[in-house]
Formats: sequence, structure tokens, C-alpha cells
Amino acid sequence: MINVDALKRIVGNDWVVTARDQITGYLADETYLGVLPKPADNVVVVKPANPKEISEILKLANKEKTPVYPRGGGTGLVGAAVPTRDGIVLSLERLDKVIEVDKENMMVVSEAGVTLEHLLKSVENADLLFPPHPGDEGAQVGGMIACNAGGTRAVKYGVVRNYVKGLEVVLPTGEIVTMGGKLLKNNTGLDLMHLIIDSEGILGIITKATMRLYPKFGATATLVVSFDDRRAAIGMVPKILQAGVIPMAIEYTEKSLMEMTAKHVNMTWPAKQGTAQTIIIMAESNEDQLYGMCEQISSIAEKNGAVDVLMAETSAEQTTILKIRSEVGNAVKSKVCDALDVTVPPAAIPDMLDALDKVGEKYGIFIPVVGHAGDGNLHPNMMWEYEKKGVLKAAKHDIYEAAIKLGGVISGEHGIGKTRLEVLPMNIDPKSRELMCGIKKLFDPNGILSPDSAIC
Amino acid sequence: MINVDALKRIVGNDWVVTARDQITGYLADETYLGVLPKPADNVVVVKPANPKEISEILKLANKEKTPVYPRGGGTGLVGAAVPTRDGIVLSLERLDKVIEVDKENMMVVSEAGVTLEHLLKSVENADLLFPPHPGDEGAQVGGMIACNAGGTRAVKYGVVRNYVKGLEVVLPTGEIVTMGGKLLKNNTGLDLMHLIIDSEGILGIITKATMRLYPKFGATATLVVSFDDRRAAIGMVPKILQAGVIPMAIEYTEKSLMEMTAKHVNMTWPAKQGTAQTIIIMAESNEDQLYGMCEQISSIAEKNGAVDVLMAETSAEQTTILKIRSEVGNAVKSKVCDALDVTVPPAAIPDMLDALDKVGEKYGIFIPVVGHAGDGNLHPNMMWEYEKKGVLKAAKHDIYEAAIKLGGVISGEHGIGKTRLEVLPMNIDPKSRELMCGIKKLFDPNGILSPDSAIC
Repeated sequence: MINVDALKRIVGNDWVVTARDQITGYLADETYLGVLPKPADNVVVVKPANPKEISEILKLANKEKTPVYPRGGGTGLVGAAVPTRDGIVLSLERLDKVIEVDKENMMVVSEAGVTLEHLLKSVENADLLFPPHPGDEGAQVGGMIACNAGGTRAVKYGVVRNYVKGLEVVLPTGEIVTMGGKLLKNNTGLDLMHLIIDSEGILGIITKATMRLYPKFGATATLVVSFDDRRAAIGMVPKILQAGVIPMAIEYTEKSLMEMTAKHVNMTWPAKQGTAQTIIIMAESNEDQLYGMCEQISSIAEKNGAVDVLMAETSAEQTTILKIRSEVGNAVKSKVCDALDVTVPPAAIPDMLDALDKVGEKYGIFIPVVGHAGDGNLHPNMMWEYEKKGVLKAAKHDIYEAAIKLGGVISGEHGIGKTRLEVLPMNIDPKSRELMCGIKKLFDPNGILSPDSAIC
Repeated sequence: MINVDALKRIVGNDWVVTARDQITGYLADETYLGVLPKPADNVVVVKPANPKEISEILKLANKEKTPVYPRGGGTGLVGAAVPTRDGIVLSLERLDKVIEVDKENMMVVSEAGVTLEHLLKSVENADLLFPPHPGDEGAQVGGMIACNAGGTRAVKYGVVRNYVKGLEVVLPTGEIVTMGGKLLKNNTGLDLMHLIIDSEGILGIITKATMRLYPKFGATATLVVSFDDRRAAIGMVPKILQAGVIPMAIEYTEKSLMEMTAKHVNMTWPAKQGTAQTIIIMAESNEDQLYGMCEQISSIAEKNGAVDVLMAETSAEQTTILKIRSEVGNAVKSKVCDALDVTVPPAAIPDMLDALDKVGEKYGIFIPVVGHAGDGNLHPNMMWEYEKKGVLKAAKHDIYEAAIKLGGVISGEHGIGKTRLEVLPMNIDPKSRELMCGIKKLFDPNGILSPDSAIC
């Protein structure tokens, strides 16, 4: 049983919620319904105000062997935040302060419950930039770090891991430890900070983070380059990168999907030609650099068989394109039961697309796909109709197998969580998994933290 | 006793060296003589050809509880490679092949014993760039990764960690495991790869690495900006970064030191004015970008009190400056008993320099310093004369304390190794250290790998 009275003594009566109808929002995350885990029956939501209260909750949970599920913005796609055993959902929502935007050091210090939207605004107000943009702006800082979020802008600046320079973490056994700081170099012992990053809430609860910022871009533009076939669209990507032009994002998409999405949000998709399209976002320090880059890309596009290059330069035009791109997930959500997250070496994307076509042929299905072409990360959509046909599981398995055969992995940015645990052995050898389990046991001897995402 | 016969059966007679006079080069590294650990009496050097032989050596060492010291280029500065107990020096020198420079994926796959010099040439031949440059080009790939090497070029592109995308590692218990690959995104379970990076050879032996490459720079230039005082020189650095201009390197140095070094290598230091100087290396994709940046920096320099801005544009001029900068360590080596590696938030560098002055005053010494001003990493030189005065230990302690008080760490790029183990508790809390020890025991239950650098 969950010791509700003790929890109330720690955080105060107002911050412990037990009534089922008041906690439904805490029982699921953004995981597609086809794979969303079922929440347990007896769940208590606790909303601590600070690391000290979190420490006390975890000490209590250890004493009473109560499972604890840390929860950020609930934007995860692999069910990691879903409380699948009777226990505590520990929401970080009250740790919602951006503590400091340090202009001299170009660092932001933020509590874990700050949303990406809030973080971006605070940084923008200080005339600086936090480059990564992992999609949903309701994601919280702690969750983005625990999941090493990726997103579209990883081509030039990399994933969230690259930005994290310091963490405050409450360990499952209750100790509050700090790692790193406002530091660009730090080699002092084994790097526990980089182990906490991407640990998906099984090794500790992040309560505060220090992250690196960059100067604002002076000029941005967005190109939509259209082709008549997938291979040509994707084949252009390495040519751009090798030319010394590194855009902020290179997205692969398909016109049919974009037009459907545009309709869904009452907008018009501006790129009318071709079928396979790449969206290229450029951000440079000034307009001269930007134009030079656009010219280079246009010329590479023509040489590689593009049928059209559309350049959006005004803020409004760019916003339209990016808004439609960001709504693809929502537009198709009702038809989709799961979205995969396979990642292959960037140059293997054409082969991965061919492999998807083959899987489609084998099972008599069409697999729509969007993806981050510049970094090899693809999201094939698994439709409900595959389940009806009884081919879903087999199709997924074949896609994972194809990605691994190409030197890839089953997850590039969404993580393992609960929904991919059963396929993890396809990707991780038994010894590595044994070490991961050993690390989990070392940090969390009673296994109280996110038990069903716990790798072992 | 070391089982030399069994070692010979594994690697062949020619690759096991026992005669003391033939192994003297393997008993030390580049650690300054004031802190270089004393090697043990009974040391055998073994030179395996591949991961399989390394695996067998480690299995044997486990069975017989023999300490094993992995050795790369021997360029470390904290004694990590010195065999301080009777045991085996395992040299990676025969794993010396660059396996592939993959132009499509912009990745290099290299064996661990490849030197930085060899790696840079292979990458250059393929018209690509490996941006980091952690000093001594005799360093080897495995060592650079095990030590998360930094160097001058970390300002724009970060330290070696940022480039590593895949590893092959032989664990202390003999298993050969691979992690990652030619991947820009990878979230599949706890990130063991990022734990191996910066583990200083205590968790496993890196045998192969996949690292990200970049397009070659189209144009480079080097500026030497001179000032009459330290604070002004250093104070300019954040202004440059905030202006959106991110050079590849921003080094802080002192004219007296550069002139002494120039004399040492029979060259002339070209920047005659001022006393405190910053060397700014810029690398951009074309000359227009480069000139724009130089103009911006010159104007910021003037506003911040520079007395001279020298611009080196030809390859010869740039080489002179960089050659002299890279020889500072050698020029002063005979006078120096240890070089520290404190790192503080970049904007705290002026305060750190003031703290160094205060320590100097307190003990009646002058502390020469060079450092990576753009990333907060300073190398105060500890001179033999401090030891003669009996103030060395106290001065070091005060410098560490000052760095930590400013939010810094005792090592930014050189690591802990053996020489900084005793001061590590100043920087790492007991619980974090307990976790590091636990991880070490998990990977290496018999404690055979680099036992005296082993954190616990």
C-alpha cells in the first residue's frame, strides 16, 4: 500500500492527489494507443516543490518498496512515464523556474519542470539561443535530458546531450548530488552526468540542469526541395553535407502527407511539385552567409535531379512550412497505432527506404514515413490497418531487423521506455545488458524507480 | 608472478618484451617529473595484434590477478599509463590501421593505436576534417577517447566526446562489445559508450572507434590580440562569443612566455606589443565569412582596450604562431614540476587569474599560465622553485580550492589518472565516488585494469 499520510507530511496535503478522476492526465503520455501501456489501479500523484522533498519521497519509497514514476511534460512516445504498477507518479511540474540565463557564460540554469516553451522564451528574451528543438514544446527540461531528446535540429548542433553541462540529480536512494557546472571541459572521474543523460528516469530524478547557449542566428531561411522519387531526394543529403554546408535541419517528407496535414490544420502546403520532398532549414549569423548557402544548395539540388526548389524567406512563409511539418504527427495520429524511430548511418537512408518498401510489399501495406534525413533518423508510421490485417508485429520486426542490418538502431531519439523493451535484445548484446542492469542495481538497489522501464 | 609463457602463447614470442632495457619507454608517460609515479620492478610489455588477443590477455590476467596497464601514445600528463604495480603494459601500437574514411557518412573508423597525426592525414587525404586537436600528435585514438581529450579547438566544436559515435571495447573480463556506430542519434538503453569515454582505461580497453568528420574549412586566419593587462585580454573573450562569432580556438598566453619559447625553437614571436595576449584561430567555409569575422573581432578588440591586433593570413605566418604556441610546454618543461588543468566557467577566468596572483603573492612566487581562454581551461605551471621553497603542495591546494569556489573543477582535459587521485575528494562528493567505485567493480570485479588510477 502507498503511504499517503507520509507523502502528505512531506509535500503538504495539497500536493498529494489520490482521486482517480483527478489524475487521469497523469496515467498516460503521448505514446500511440496501439502500444500505450495500461496504468495500474492504485496510483498517487505527488507534486514536490524541491529536491529535498523529492529526496524524502524516495527515501520513503525505498523503505516501503513503493514504485516511483518520475513525470515531466508527459510528451514521451514509449510509455516510460506510465505508472504500470501500484505506486507514485512524481510530477516535476512545480520545479518550474528558469533560475538564470547567464549571458557572460552563455549558459542557462533551469529547474527540471520548466517546459521547452518557457525555456526558449527565457533564452530568447536574453538575446541568446538554445538550438535544439525536440518537437513538442510541452516537454520539460528534465525529461528532455533524461531522454536525450533529438528533434529536427540535430544535424548541425547535435542532440540535447551536447548542451548539458551540469545536473542536479536526486538518486533513488535519496542523496542529492550535483555533476558538472557552467563548464565546457570537465574530466574529473567517471562521467556520471553522461550516464544520467538518456537514462530515461531509471537511475535518478533530474531536478536542475545547466545547459550551453549560443548566439542568436542573424538570418534564417527554409527551402523545400522537391523530387519525383525517394532515392533522389535522400541521395542529395550527403552531397550537401560534404559540400561544407551544414544546415540546421534536413527533413525528409512526402507531399501527400504534407497536403493531408495542411488540410487538417486549414493551411496550404506551398510546394506543389514532385512527390518526395526535403525541407532544409538554414540559420546563419548574417544574410550574406545565408544567401551563399542557399545558392550552393540550389545548385546541388539541380545537379541531383530536383524538380523544384522553393525558398521561404519571410518569417510567415517559414512558419507555415514548419507548422505543417510539426503537425504531421497529430494529423495522422488517429490512423497510427505506433511510430517507429529507427536510425541508420545517414548515407544508408535510401537503403532503409527501399527496405521499408520491401516490407510493405511483403505484407501488402503502404508505410508512410517522415524523418530527419540529415541525421539518419526515420519515423515509419505503423497504421491501425496493419493490426487488422494481423501483420503489425511481423512488419515491425522486419523493419527493426533491416535497420540493424544497415548498422542502425531501434531508437534514435524516442528511447526504449516500456514499449521497446521486448525488442531491445535485437540491438544490445547480453553482456552490455548485464552491465546496464548492474548499473541500475547499483543506483537503485530496491528497484523503486520506473521499474517496468528498467532494462533488466 | 607474470605468466610470460602464456602471454607468448597468446601474442607470439616477438610481442612480449621482458628485458628492462628494452621497455624503459613504456614505464613513463609525459607526466611532469615532479609528479611522475615510479614504475614497478617487474613489468612485461605485451603488444597484441587484435581485440581477440587482448581479450585472451585480459582473461589470463583475471585468472592470475595480474594488473594490466593499457597504453596508447604515452602522451598523458597524469601518470595513468605508468605501471605502478608488477604487471603487464598492454600497448595498442599494433592496432594501427585507419580502417575507413567514409565520405558518404562523414565518419572515420579507426583502430585504437592510430596516432592523431596518422588520423589527421588520412582524413585530410579524403578532403574531410577531424576538428579537435588535443596537442601532441603522437596521442593515439584510443587514448584520446579514454581521456576525452580537449585541446585548443574545443571552443567551437567541443571536446573529443562530441565526435565519438561508435566504439569497440574489450571489457576487463574479456568480452568484446560494440557500442553505437555511424550514427548521429542513438538512444538504445543506458549509454555505456559515454561511460567508457573519459574512463581513463579503468573500465575497458578501446580497440576501435567510429568518429564524426566535418567538411574542410575553406579559409583560416589567426589573430594575435595584445593587451597591457590580463583582465582586459580575458575580458574580451565573452564579448566575442556573445557577438555570434565563435572562433575555433581562443588561447590566452603571455608575451614573455611566447618570446622565451620562440627563442627555444629558434623562431621569432611576431606580436611585439602588450604583455597579455590572446591567440584567436578562425576557420570558416569561405573567405568572405572569414574576413567578416576578422573585422568583427578587431572592432571588439579595440573597444576592449587592445593595444595591437596582428592578423596572420598566409599559411607560413599562421604556422609560426601555432608552432610557437604548441612548443610552450616543451620550452618550460625543465623548469616545471607539474602543470595544473583547472577549469572554471569561461566568464570566471579573470577571477581565476586574480586568484592565481593572490596565491603567488601569498607564497612569494610567480605563476606562469597558459590556457584555453574560450573554454575556461587554464594550465598554471608549477615550477621546481616552489618545491625548493617548500610551498608547492600548499600553492596547488589553494589553486584547486580557488577554482572549485568559482564553480570549477580540478581537471578540464588532462584527467585524474594517478597524480590527482588524492585531491579528487575536493571535487567529488562521497556518494558520487561510491557510485564510480561501484561501476568500476561491476566492469572489473578483480580490479586488474589500471589498479592505481581506479578512483576507489
